[in-house]
Amino acid sequence: MGSQTMENAAEGGPLTREPLDRAQADAFAPMFKALGDPVRLRLLSMIASARGGEVCVCDLTGEFHLTGPTISHHLKVLREAGLVDSDRRGTWVYYRMIPAALAVMGTLLETGIPV
Amino acid sequence: MGSQTMENAAEGGPLTREPLDRAQADAFAPMFKALGDPVRLRLLSMIASARGGEVCVCDLTGEFHLTGPTISHHLKVLREAGLVDSDRRGTWVYYRMIPAALAVMGTLLETGIPV
Repeated sequence: MGSQTMENAAEGGPLTREPLDRAQADAFAPMFKALGDPVRLRLLSMIASARGGEVCVCDLTGEFHLTGPTISHHLKVLREAGLVDSDRRGTWVYYRMIPAALAVMGTLLETGIPV
Repeated sequence: MGSQTMENAAEGGPLTREPLDRAQADAFAPMFKALGDPVRLRLLSMIASARGGEVCVCDLTGEFHLTGPTISHHLKVLREAGLVDSDRRGTWVYYRMIPAALAVMGTLLETGIPV
């Protein structure tokens, strides 16, 4: 879904230009929903701001008073929404953000109005 | 909460700069959650792209196969998240977007990476 979402964004442009059609709204809503949780927002910010562009899951879990499976669930939601990617190397899984996904969301929110 | 959220954003900057603290995440998550629904995304885009900067609720309901109370609920979620404002004039309620709210969300998503 990731690349299709981005094509829709490129076609659709900011929310202020014209109303989204149903397909566009269906494509984008899960991305916003994924960020609609404080733990996931913090996880994404930890991944997005990580030195070297990626972070080991072992460095994420210690920041929260949550169980490993709960953190894993939130990371899965971010991954399924196309906002982060991961790969396993040895014992650990490493996460990195997908800049293009954040960019299409940001583009959608552009108002062109100085604030 | 709206103005405090915006101050947090001004302090915090993009997600890529540093991890959000808990207070920032708690402030921003409801704004993203409000957009995490296809109907609300379409409603916001209809409001944000309206000529004249505002739209009558009477022009929103016809676009959806949903009851008036359901549309009203979704509009209330957008309003409580600080993304739109409304006022009643005569029989109808009129909605307009709050550009500063969309701007702080957009700023949060900036990666500084060309895509």
